[in-house]
Amino acid sequence: MSDPNNYLETFENPSHNRDYLIEIITPEFTCLCPKTGQPDFAKLTLKYQPNKLCVELKSYKLYMHSFRDRGSFHEAVTNMIAEDLIALLNPKKLQIHAEFNVRGGIYTNVTVNHKWG
Amino acid sequence: MSDPNNYLETFENPSHNRDYLIEIITPEFTCLCPKTGQPDFAKLTLKYQPNKLCVELKSYKLYMHSFRDRGSFHEAVTNMIAEDLIALLNPKKLQIHAEFNVRGGIYTNVTVNHKWG
Amino acid sequence: MSDPNNYLETFENPSHNRDYLIEIITPEFTCLCPKTGQPDFAKLTLKYQPNKLCVELKSYKLYMHSFRDRGSFHEAVTNMIAEDLIALLNPKKLQIHAEFNVRGGIYTNVTVNHKWG
Amino acid sequence: MSDPNNYLETFENPSHNRDYLIEIITPEFTCLCPKTGQPDFAKLTLKYQPNKLCVELKSYKLYMHSFRDRGSFHEAVTNMIAEDLIALLNPKKLQIHAEFNVRGGIYTNVTVNHKWG
Amino acid sequence: MSDPNNYLETFENPSHNRDYLIEIITPEFTCLCPKTGQPDFAKLTLKYQPNKLCVELKSYKLYMHSFRDRGSFHEAVTNMIAEDLIALLNPKKLQIHAEFNVRGGIYTNVTVNHKWG
Amino acid sequence: MSDPNNYLETFENPSHNRDYLIEIITPEFTCLCPKTGQPDFAKLTLKYQPNKLCVELKSYKLYMHSFRDRGSFHEAVTNMIAEDLIALLNPKKLQIHAEFNVRGGIYTNVTVNHKWG
Amino acid sequence: MSDPNNYLETFENPSHNRDYLIEIITPEFTCLCPKTGQPDFAKLTLKYQPNKLCVELKSYKLYMHSFRDRGSFHEAVTNMIAEDLIALLNPKKLQIHAEFNVRGGIYTNVTVNHKWG
Amino acid sequence: MSDPNNYLETFENPSHNRDYLIEIITPEFTCLCPKTGQPDFAKLTLKYQPNKLCVELKSYKLYMHSFRDRGSFHEAVTNMIAEDLIALLNPKKLQIHAEFNVRGGIYTNVTVNHKWG
Amino acid sequence: MSDPNNYLETFENPSHNRDYLIEIITPEFTCLCPKTGQPDFAKLTLKYQPNKLCVELKSYKLYMHSFRDRGSFHEAVTNMIAEDLIALLNPKKLQIHAEFNVRGGIYTNVTVNHKWG
Amino acid sequence: MSDPNNYLETFENPSHNRDYLIEIITPEFTCLCPKTGQPDFAKLTLKYQPNKLCVELKSYKLYMHSFRDRGSFHEAVTNMIAEDLIALLNPKKLQIHAEFNVRGGIYTNVTVNHKWG
Repeated sequence: MSDPNNYLETFENPSHNRDYLIEIITPEFTCLCPKTGQPDFAKLTLKYQPNKLCVELKSYKLYMHSFRDRGSFHEAVTNMIAEDLIALLNPKKLQIHAEFNVRGGIYTNVTVNHKWG
Repeated sequence: MSDPNNYLETFENPSHNRDYLIEIITPEFTCLCPKTGQPDFAKLTLKYQPNKLCVELKSYKLYMHSFRDRGSFHEAVTNMIAEDLIALLNPKKLQIHAEFNVRGGIYTNVTVNHKWG
Repeated sequence: MSDPNNYLETFENPSHNRDYLIEIITPEFTCLCPKTGQPDFAKLTLKYQPNKLCVELKSYKLYMHSFRDRGSFHEAVTNMIAEDLIALLNPKKLQIHAEFNVRGGIYTNVTVNHKWG
Repeated sequence: MSDPNNYLETFENPSHNRDYLIEIITPEFTCLCPKTGQPDFAKLTLKYQPNKLCVELKSYKLYMHSFRDRGSFHEAVTNMIAEDLIALLNPKKLQIHAEFNVRGGIYTNVTVNHKWG
Repeated sequence: MSDPNNYLETFENPSHNRDYLIEIITPEFTCLCPKTGQPDFAKLTLKYQPNKLCVELKSYKLYMHSFRDRGSFHEAVTNMIAEDLIALLNPKKLQIHAEFNVRGGIYTNVTVNHKWG
Repeated sequence: MSDPNNYLETFENPSHNRDYLIEIITPEFTCLCPKTGQPDFAKLTLKYQPNKLCVELKSYKLYMHSFRDRGSFHEAVTNMIAEDLIALLNPKKLQIHAEFNVRGGIYTNVTVNHKWG
Repeated sequence: MSDPNNYLETFENPSHNRDYLIEIITPEFTCLCPKTGQPDFAKLTLKYQPNKLCVELKSYKLYMHSFRDRGSFHEAVTNMIAEDLIALLNPKKLQIHAEFNVRGGIYTNVTVNHKWG
Repeated sequence: MSDPNNYLETFENPSHNRDYLIEIITPEFTCLCPKTGQPDFAKLTLKYQPNKLCVELKSYKLYMHSFRDRGSFHEAVTNMIAEDLIALLNPKKLQIHAEFNVRGGIYTNVTVNHKWG
Repeated sequence: MSDPNNYLETFENPSHNRDYLIEIITPEFTCLCPKTGQPDFAKLTLKYQPNKLCVELKSYKLYMHSFRDRGSFHEAVTNMIAEDLIALLNPKKLQIHAEFNVRGGIYTNVTVNHKWG
Repeated sequence: MSDPNNYLETFENPSHNRDYLIEIITPEFTCLCPKTGQPDFAKLTLKYQPNKLCVELKSYKLYMHSFRDRGSFHEAVTNMIAEDLIALLNPKKLQIHAEFNVRGGIYTNVTVNHKWG
């Protein structure tokens, strides 16, 4: 169902000599609750150390927008985004951190690590 | 006296390939002081790395509400919640952190760690 | 149903020469949602300029606690508290401001003024 | 095109004796840019002094959600929401304040007043 | 019982041509609760527009310290300090604002105005 | 030298029935110091109540960018922007507030009001 | 003793058509305590509406520095700076606000207004 | 001179299975300067991992109050409190952190660790 | 194309006995987007442990300004600045952290480490 | 030129049993720029673990004041203060951190460590 190839594009890492970290923060992530159909909102933070490829920013934004009309559980959607980006970039390390807005008086955050430390 | 089976439900961990962290923050925890019968208030933060099971959010909220009319000492209630969740989830690691509201000019926090490192 | 005489006590205004303002802030107000039975939480701020009487602080705290098990709509409970205190104190002016915790992504505040402007 | 009757419901003002103010804050408002089709996000604050009717909170939330797939210019959508609520509630006074998220390095806020000053 | 003459000293207003405002903030005010003998703490803010006299800062600090061992109700002590300073300075206008630390989950502030506006 | 016609565009005010306020905040304004040629930076806030016309946001952004290579004194540039927008929009009221970044340990703000009240 | 002519320079107001406000904030004001010789520190905020003249910023900075080695009481120095600038600029209105750093647990602010109203 | 036995009481650790951390924050600590007799103020934070005993909160509060009239140097009093609590509780680890209010423009903090690292 | 020799100057490290860290924060970095020609803005933080040379501050400022009219991708420009400074200073360790302003609802940070840890 | 013996005094460490940390924060450090003669300002933070001696607070304050009229480069003065205190106290470990106020849009911090890591 999730086909990131429709959205995500890459460019070649401009610095092969030296490891470095890229952090991309999306405070405007929104999807739908699969149970109620009501909108959910989250702040999504991607950090990764590139290998040969970097994710292109505009394509990443469109990928984020592609969740707007999909039903997605908190834990599942965060893991799915991590898997998509790991498959795309084969990064040296990667972390996805999602902070979902309060529902029923409860705040939920999910953090997925790939070779993170 | 505490019977979490009345409230807590689980669902299967959607990601078995990769370890990740779930954080659930409840700023609206309230119970009663066993000495005076007066209400106490706390912000409760649960963090855990799931094994085969995750705690279902709505059932967790009801479990939190179940303390509303119970008398509970700060140190004891935080440990009891940790024991209930460890028994339920058998998590890879887990932490409960409770920040109790000021009483008599004094703020009390309690932190219970399970295989936390 | 609300019988503030069970809780609220007064003492004589210690300063008759000069008008002044008393502000009493209760960040730990909680009641129940009349529709769902689930707990609601609010920060309640009372401001008043006393006439002949002031409200005694400990009795005010117990009055606040008396809402813990009652079902109360946001708009109605704020007005009811205002009416109780106006009847008790006959103040020169009075304001009640209630800030309810977020529910369904929405924050609600209610402000009742008595001879305030 | 906007038909608020599909969403908005009212209940009778519980306090006719005394004027008071209701404030409803929606940090999760989202619509689409009519030019680009890209999502826009805003924090929407409604304040009003009720006359005979109050807006029911759950119906208000659904009304907010109804903008999720509509193209809406900042200035026009804020005015349209104001007109819908004024027609529904005939309030003694009303204010809508929308704070749109940054686009192109620029933040835009729109404030509509009805008998406010 | 309160004898401010033991502490408070004045100096001549250095600017008679032009009205101006002096604000003196004391975050370290402490007295005793007359009921329980337990310590109370407050932040005290004095604002005044001098007439012929200004209060000397070191003497004001000692006057503040003189409450350390006295039992004082919130409303009464704030009014007493206002009266002492009005008698001492005969100011064009004066305001005392006391913010008492939380007790029993309740914050209390008291504000006394003299010809303030 | 300043020719706003090269940048600024307008659209028709979508609400003629009711007065309302538009606020446009630009944290990324930069120009050059006429004395030293060194860059200056400011946060520029425009507020106005539209008459028949509103300023189009993208054209406003380009107008802001047009100052990037111009030498401009703080007081003069803020007034010039106000004059350009007043000539363009003939607004019911307008305010420009510029907060310049610290230079030599000193922060400078300039506020220009047009029928602001 | 204070000779502002040694420091302060002016330039002609670039906007005679329209009244506007200039605010100059100096967080690095320092002088000496006349009693103890110890350094005092303050944040000084000047606001004025120019008439025919504006104060030149670099000269204002040097004027501020000229207090570094002078003994100055809080109330007196704030009034003296106000008088110097009023004599220099003959402004339509002017305000000086000085926030002195804490001494002996007490914070002191002084505000001088000229036609500020 | 310090006799904590007059104040401090203990209760049995309710959780022997699992190590956990207790943090008790006292923003209202006050003592006297041994040189000048003037009051000092501090925020005191105790953290410890209990062994067989926990400190009872109300007795801890009274112990804190017992310093109100004692002359105490910053470094010495923080160490003394640490020694008293270590003797009382024989904790698995303990830390005392004291943040003293500014005096003469200087802030002083003292941190004592027991098996903390 | 980048010729830092036109800007950057050094001075001899004043402390050869002891390692220490220098941090230089530039909140006013601006360059151009190579795709659109529109300005980008960032806060740039350099940290380094000097070897024999330190970078002179005024020359560093001019080097920062030299990017004002250049097109530069986020990832590339951060790496280029790191390489220039490493070549200039041969530091014991060095880190560049760039926080770019939001574009399209997305914040991007880039961190380059050299022997950092 | 720097002769700390004129200012700095010590007292005997009151706790030989146990290592602990002392932190002394001076937000009011000021010296002169050796190039321009203009004042510089910094917040200076000293942390150290005492050996046999502690630095006396009042003498430390006077030592800080002694830089008021001296020309001092950022990197050099921070190292000089570290050397003076290391020679005076022979501490088990020590850190000096200086945060200089912004100059030319650039903030500079310097951190010197002695046996710190």
